[in-house]
Amino acid sequence: MQKDLKNSPLSPPSFVWTKGNVKEGKMNEWIIPIQEAVEIEPEEEWDVVMFGIPLSRSSISVSGASEFPDAFRRGWKGFSTYNLDEEVDLEELTVLDAGNVDMHFTDISLSHSNIVQSMENLTDKFPQSMITAIGGDHSITAMVVKGIKNAKKNETIGILQLDTHFDLRDLKDHGPTNGTPIRNLIESGTIEGTNVHNIGLHGFFNGKSLVESAKVYGVNYTTLSKARDQGVVNAVKRALETLGENVDHIHLTVDMDVLDIAYAPGVPASTPGGMTTHELFQAVFAAGLHEKVKSMDIVCLDPTKDHPAQPTVKAGIHVFLSFLSGFAKRKI
Amino acid sequence: MQKDLKNSPLSPPSFVWTKGNVKEGKMNEWIIPIQEAVEIEPEEEWDVVMFGIPLSRSSISVSGASEFPDAFRRGWKGFSTYNLDEEVDLEELTVLDAGNVDMHFTDISLSHSNIVQSMENLTDKFPQSMITAIGGDHSITAMVVKGIKNAKKNETIGILQLDTHFDLRDLKDHGPTNGTPIRNLIESGTIEGTNVHNIGLHGFFNGKSLVESAKVYGVNYTTLSKARDQGVVNAVKRALETLGENVDHIHLTVDMDVLDIAYAPGVPASTPGGMTTHELFQAVFAAGLHEKVKSMDIVCLDPTKDHPAQPTVKAGIHVFLSFLSGFAKRKI
Amino acid sequence: MQKDLKNSPLSPPSFVWTKGNVKEGKMNEWIIPIQEAVEIEPEEEWDVVMFGIPLSRSSISVSGASEFPDAFRRGWKGFSTYNLDEEVDLEELTVLDAGNVDMHFTDISLSHSNIVQSMENLTDKFPQSMITAIGGDHSITAMVVKGIKNAKKNETIGILQLDTHFDLRDLKDHGPTNGTPIRNLIESGTIEGTNVHNIGLHGFFNGKSLVESAKVYGVNYTTLSKARDQGVVNAVKRALETLGENVDHIHLTVDMDVLDIAYAPGVPASTPGGMTTHELFQAVFAAGLHEKVKSMDIVCLDPTKDHPAQPTVKAGIHVFLSFLSGFAKRKI
Amino acid sequence: MQKDLKNSPLSPPSFVWTKGNVKEGKMNEWIIPIQEAVEIEPEEEWDVVMFGIPLSRSSISVSGASEFPDAFRRGWKGFSTYNLDEEVDLEELTVLDAGNVDMHFTDISLSHSNIVQSMENLTDKFPQSMITAIGGDHSITAMVVKGIKNAKKNETIGILQLDTHFDLRDLKDHGPTNGTPIRNLIESGTIEGTNVHNIGLHGFFNGKSLVESAKVYGVNYTTLSKARDQGVVNAVKRALETLGENVDHIHLTVDMDVLDIAYAPGVPASTPGGMTTHELFQAVFAAGLHEKVKSMDIVCLDPTKDHPAQPTVKAGIHVFLSFLSGFAKRKI
Amino acid sequence: MQKDLKNSPLSPPSFVWTKGNVKEGKMNEWIIPIQEAVEIEPEEEWDVVMFGIPLSRSSISVSGASEFPDAFRRGWKGFSTYNLDEEVDLEELTVLDAGNVDMHFTDISLSHSNIVQSMENLTDKFPQSMITAIGGDHSITAMVVKGIKNAKKNETIGILQLDTHFDLRDLKDHGPTNGTPIRNLIESGTIEGTNVHNIGLHGFFNGKSLVESAKVYGVNYTTLSKARDQGVVNAVKRALETLGENVDHIHLTVDMDVLDIAYAPGVPASTPGGMTTHELFQAVFAAGLHEKVKSMDIVCLDPTKDHPAQPTVKAGIHVFLSFLSGFAKRKI
Amino acid sequence: MQKDLKNSPLSPPSFVWTKGNVKEGKMNEWIIPIQEAVEIEPEEEWDVVMFGIPLSRSSISVSGASEFPDAFRRGWKGFSTYNLDEEVDLEELTVLDAGNVDMHFTDISLSHSNIVQSMENLTDKFPQSMITAIGGDHSITAMVVKGIKNAKKNETIGILQLDTHFDLRDLKDHGPTNGTPIRNLIESGTIEGTNVHNIGLHGFFNGKSLVESAKVYGVNYTTLSKARDQGVVNAVKRALETLGENVDHIHLTVDMDVLDIAYAPGVPASTPGGMTTHELFQAVFAAGLHEKVKSMDIVCLDPTKDHPAQPTVKAGIHVFLSFLSGFAKRKI
Repeated sequence: MQKDLKNSPLSPPSFVWTKGNVKEGKMNEWIIPIQEAVEIEPEEEWDVVMFGIPLSRSSISVSGASEFPDAFRRGWKGFSTYNLDEEVDLEELTVLDAGNVDMHFTDISLSHSNIVQSMENLTDKFPQSMITAIGGDHSITAMVVKGIKNAKKNETIGILQLDTHFDLRDLKDHGPTNGTPIRNLIESGTIEGTNVHNIGLHGFFNGKSLVESAKVYGVNYTTLSKARDQGVVNAVKRALETLGENVDHIHLTVDMDVLDIAYAPGVPASTPGGMTTHELFQAVFAAGLHEKVKSMDIVCLDPTKDHPAQPTVKAGIHVFLSFLSGFAKRKI
Repeated sequence: MQKDLKNSPLSPPSFVWTKGNVKEGKMNEWIIPIQEAVEIEPEEEWDVVMFGIPLSRSSISVSGASEFPDAFRRGWKGFSTYNLDEEVDLEELTVLDAGNVDMHFTDISLSHSNIVQSMENLTDKFPQSMITAIGGDHSITAMVVKGIKNAKKNETIGILQLDTHFDLRDLKDHGPTNGTPIRNLIESGTIEGTNVHNIGLHGFFNGKSLVESAKVYGVNYTTLSKARDQGVVNAVKRALETLGENVDHIHLTVDMDVLDIAYAPGVPASTPGGMTTHELFQAVFAAGLHEKVKSMDIVCLDPTKDHPAQPTVKAGIHVFLSFLSGFAKRKI
Repeated sequence: MQKDLKNSPLSPPSFVWTKGNVKEGKMNEWIIPIQEAVEIEPEEEWDVVMFGIPLSRSSISVSGASEFPDAFRRGWKGFSTYNLDEEVDLEELTVLDAGNVDMHFTDISLSHSNIVQSMENLTDKFPQSMITAIGGDHSITAMVVKGIKNAKKNETIGILQLDTHFDLRDLKDHGPTNGTPIRNLIESGTIEGTNVHNIGLHGFFNGKSLVESAKVYGVNYTTLSKARDQGVVNAVKRALETLGENVDHIHLTVDMDVLDIAYAPGVPASTPGGMTTHELFQAVFAAGLHEKVKSMDIVCLDPTKDHPAQPTVKAGIHVFLSFLSGFAKRKI
Repeated sequence: MQKDLKNSPLSPPSFVWTKGNVKEGKMNEWIIPIQEAVEIEPEEEWDVVMFGIPLSRSSISVSGASEFPDAFRRGWKGFSTYNLDEEVDLEELTVLDAGNVDMHFTDISLSHSNIVQSMENLTDKFPQSMITAIGGDHSITAMVVKGIKNAKKNETIGILQLDTHFDLRDLKDHGPTNGTPIRNLIESGTIEGTNVHNIGLHGFFNGKSLVESAKVYGVNYTTLSKARDQGVVNAVKRALETLGENVDHIHLTVDMDVLDIAYAPGVPASTPGGMTTHELFQAVFAAGLHEKVKSMDIVCLDPTKDHPAQPTVKAGIHVFLSFLSGFAKRKI
Repeated sequence: MQKDLKNSPLSPPSFVWTKGNVKEGKMNEWIIPIQEAVEIEPEEEWDVVMFGIPLSRSSISVSGASEFPDAFRRGWKGFSTYNLDEEVDLEELTVLDAGNVDMHFTDISLSHSNIVQSMENLTDKFPQSMITAIGGDHSITAMVVKGIKNAKKNETIGILQLDTHFDLRDLKDHGPTNGTPIRNLIESGTIEGTNVHNIGLHGFFNGKSLVESAKVYGVNYTTLSKARDQGVVNAVKRALETLGENVDHIHLTVDMDVLDIAYAPGVPASTPGGMTTHELFQAVFAAGLHEKVKSMDIVCLDPTKDHPAQPTVKAGIHVFLSFLSGFAKRKI
Repeated sequence: MQKDLKNSPLSPPSFVWTKGNVKEGKMNEWIIPIQEAVEIEPEEEWDVVMFGIPLSRSSISVSGASEFPDAFRRGWKGFSTYNLDEEVDLEELTVLDAGNVDMHFTDISLSHSNIVQSMENLTDKFPQSMITAIGGDHSITAMVVKGIKNAKKNETIGILQLDTHFDLRDLKDHGPTNGTPIRNLIESGTIEGTNVHNIGLHGFFNGKSLVESAKVYGVNYTTLSKARDQGVVNAVKRALETLGENVDHIHLTVDMDVLDIAYAPGVPASTPGGMTTHELFQAVFAAGLHEKVKSMDIVCLDPTKDHPAQPTVKAGIHVFLSFLSGFAKRKI
């Protein structure tokens, strides 16, 4: 299979778990690295394709989010594949680890175009798969969605964004940083502002001018306070319903800084007053259930800032599993 | 009193607080170490007997839970004995610190049998007291309950388990680790699987085979998500009600890893999505109120992994006090 | 303006943000240090006056709360002035930073009288402004309120206290520590005990004798558990309503240790089972809305104990902004 | 024995190690708390008397050095009494733990006079013993030496100071802080400046005016750089030789901030470029050997700032043992 | 090759680095995991065979040294294979990673016999290779050397021990803990006490009775202080010279706790006053050079206690490389 | 003065210390920010000009070295200006803080050219001043030296590099990262390889190909081990002597990763076996003394990775002061 992707700017994961040497029913036995993929499963059968985007030098503040793809893989051994509440075993889904997008150390623009290219290639090759990107900082979301658009030119794309920030900063100031992806996608014509719904805004972390931009572009938003009034999961369901009526493909982007600093110290700009992990896990499960959600990313998780017990890395892996639990239920 | 227990594999606590030198109304003035016990209170009057079990080399993953009994005692100076919500002063209860069970450093089996023996002796000697064991890892629960059974051969015992895990792993794999106590008790005929109720399971931390084991053995469980739908404290009350109809003696076992990693970083396998301390304190208060709850343990709290401010050690002490608040109310 | 305060024991802040060099809409552009104040705004227009009280050697346990005023100022660059939920831009309020009260390193009594004097002078000079004191340990609250009383001799003062503790310890034991401010104010005749309402008490952190003192003095209190039964914000509103009927001036004092240790590790005596930041932010917003709340303080926040990501410092700044959001709405 | 000291402002240690329950040859079996002292050893036989001074609110910067006396005692279980290099077993020395000086929480002046009184009483009662004070911040050294002087009015006292700082700040600025003890002793006439020798000064941590004060008072000093040129231990020996010719009693004061920050993070003002622990242990061993060294203190060790592995607390205990090793050799 | 070792209680490493995906000249490209070994190199050509021993439940104090073998492998990506001072490229040595010894979670005795068996098998199969064991706690050294003895029954074995402790505790107390390996080997007749040389003892961390045991058994030792007088590396050379005259096979055992706590916080019993890494690297290089040194181990390195920057894990890997640099020079 | 530099891509520091409000003789009273410079000192009199370069997104591994310029300024309050060993008061030198170079968040190339431009402008404007650049990662050194060359076209420039690495990586791989500055300067013709002398290389942190590059380019180097044989300071003096004979202008570049990880955890790639701070301070003092050393930089210090006590930030400030001590002595 690596042959088919050989022109893509992707490299296989830098280490692989030894199958047979890990406990049955654990994540690290379940997910198949691309090096071992051909022999095990015919390619058309991948329910899920994940890949890493180790880029965070495009972050406004210091970020080690580039370390998350590998921290994500290392953390697999601590998780089983079984969802107790839904009585679903995720082992029923086939998951491919397509490796990491190649990054250049000083040419951010080249790194960005490698992401667009990789996502386009993966979408072309795995049109039926749920493709999940493991960031990386939030600048990658613009590239991931552009890659989808390149592959699916006739589809309209919407975005469900779980985030503390609008990410609508002006690209003229400092280019495509992690503060700009939504504006980048709107200004480039990839999406309509009205097809974005942000849930999770709170506190004093968005200036007035950004709120005004949101209004200009028609970006929808529900602050965390307002979402809690109806239940976060209900707010998510309503947003998906509306988006689902208007677009062909919903991309879910989870900025881990939507979580409260007590739950997620390992993000570049952690804040008090954010979501609990319980709320976030329920929200992404709901997104996984919705049939138009066809891709997702997890961004701005910096393992180098995490506590020794790694609450944020564990929360990031849990988000992936909760989302796939919804996706697995959808398929039943 | 030490004489009566002199054949027990128990040693007095390695340090004692100087009475008169600590603030009135503090825990360290209240609890009486066994060295000082004879002179102060006739033995039949102990409402509560606590003892430490400094064993964690039986833990699957690295654990410093063996350090909790002493951390527990050192932490007493930060707590008063007065419960504001219930307007109960725990000083009305007499509490004996019977010291720690003797441990062998390389013969885990001997350490385990010392626990059984100590619990049997304490139950024999203090038949009217609430006996609380301060672990140690979860393997000790099997030994503690076997000790009770040895002392009370004609009583049926049930277990209320607050835990992220089933603890139903197969003993044939690695012997009586902290992943096995419930299975150990069922397989040894000490309890019936149907007399166990687990509240707090969540996330992706129990493989499918463990859920299947739970069904085979008839172990009851309420996931945290389901418990929250009705209120955790209500779930606890219902479980106690049913257990109370079926058994003579309910043992409460609190695995501190039931708490969310944001509240309890100091456990060997902390996870996101768990209980809040508020929920746990209410749950153990409810257990303390129930007349058939006659013993309890607190396990898998690793002070060496805790944050400098010691949130988990403090939570562990608070669990002890919240439980005894219920117990004190029961007696009124 | 410094001239008018020149006999006050106050010094300007030790560093100032370079205006024009910071992002528009950020706190550090908004708040004006006293050094730069004369040229910018005529003095009568200050809606808010804040000042720091870098004193914590009066704390019972080791405390670095003296470092909070400067940590507070350094943290400004991480916050915007816009409140998303209320759609209020705090930039509409003018805010003066009057610097720090001068402290003596070994004469705590002199430091305390400097606080009284400074608060009296500020209240005299800015009678229409919301004056906010950034502590410091809780001993300062007694001094701040005495300063108000000196300036407003004919007004009756009440206190809304958000705290884990009563702060009613006997001054005869160790003088005016952070365990005594409420008793200090009552015994000195500055306030009536019946005009104090404490919300947030929980756990085992107040001895029985303190509860008895509260009853003797008529201090009102709602434990956190009881407050949660009705919603913390509702409990706050009810307390304000009653206080508002009985006094001319309500002082809000926020002891940051009212927060749960998971949210606020950076306090000298952090405890499990406390408020979430969400609850506290809503509580102080409600207080900001009430017309009789005319001054406030934030105390017992120790940045030297905080986690590297500084959750507690960020929470302290957020408390200030949430409170001012209520205040801004009040003025509309 | 407590009776004889009953008018002293001293309280027994707040906890005691259970003899017989700790390993033979460990520090916690060796040192006798005052509560247990009468029955064990007649009082005239104490070779060493140690006591704690839990005061650090007199420190210029935030300090938790008040926590060191108890951290010192808790750390005993990690140390044996045998010195391998000298083949000396310190168990041959009898050591009394006389408890802690009583402290007032807001009246620093009273705390200071309690120290003077306690040291005077101990020196009176144990005229042949090596008395060691466990601080506390460096302000205590002035009080300890004044206590000695009160008890030994006719003796001239000299000081060997191992320190990064001169401690010659002007008392008129902020009273007797930890920056002032040497000046305090000189100005009060307790000692002559020429009978002080400071070894360890380095870096950019003493302003020019302090060097000028040293010259005015005739205080001798050897910077660390100069000391290293000849070997730190040789510099110490030479300083002792000269002091020994001029005074009757040499007091050794060890400010733990003399250590490099890599070795001692747990001091209020840790700096790069300081001593290694190896150098310090050799220095205090040499001091212990000198017959005129008759008292010592260890100050400015803040356990609350230490790393989790407690390098500084361990270094502090090691200083005590290395010093006593020299003292034990002296007696042979 | 795995076939030949298939009856050994060894499992392949649980993850492998993707060759070709890592930078040339890095450790993780150089060392070959056993899974990939057959195809790459004929087995007789392995210069070095390393394997992991993830055991630390036999440690007296809490230890996560069981995590070091995997931390060791993860750390490879930070090291090149080139020694600048010696101008040697270690890539000239072929190195096999034979995986980890299988461990039982509650039967320490079985784990110990698995180590003996594995070392015997590896020594049989790779008689010309330098076999290096990556611990684990120090109890493993007794097992490793017994395995060698089983395979080389006619050879006399000596030990160069770099350690803060004698490790001569009585096995009757608590069995074969990490405090006993040298005594274990002597009492079992595997080695003579006179063929052991310990370098690095310091401080107050060995009781008098242990020194007496050393004398009874004829164990040679040079304290760190004495070693420094002549240069640590010279002390090592002299010890090797004498050992080399008396034995056929010298085993080097490096207890990482020989390092000073400033350099190695990540050991279970870190102490002040120990070796610098510079001294240790030179010492093991000298050992690598000596022709009779035919095996080695690195023990008591606990990555779970290390600082975030992982100084101790890095020092452990560096010890391995410094030792192999000597070994490579020996072969030239 | 800002006018003269107004076309430079430089902004004033974002905060300034309030003169008169800080202690006399402290660094923060001494150094003059550019905003305040015109009024205080005529421009020709600046002995030293410092400026910050907050760039680290060009670092190979995650780096927060961009935060050092501001951490450097914040740390000033902990340092006096007096050098005890040399009896020099640095206040005799006039020092200007010219602010920070403007950085672009996603166009690293633009940031790099801003550095070249700023250094050229500063060199033009202050031809007699010692210009010191506070990085940032090591990529900035290439830009700083190019800026000097632009301003001093006829001068030959040499480099004294204190570093664990060669920094000779190929620019074709990833552009001008922090692994390339020396190669960048050689390949661009700015300097000759033979005019570079690297002191401090050690361990296994440079691949064989880099050593080969050093030989090809004629780069001189003395490993730390070799330097220690003669004394690090002597090695530095010899290198300066030779460089001084061959070039007009020596630039000193201090990569803080030359320090041992025990002394400097706060660098992106901290390693064991490096320099002590004592060695480094002596080395830069010697460099400051040499008349041809006319500029310097300090790089790769990441305050976000530092321990709470900030050993690395303090060491970085100390390097600046030690270097200027030599410079001050040169002028006498």
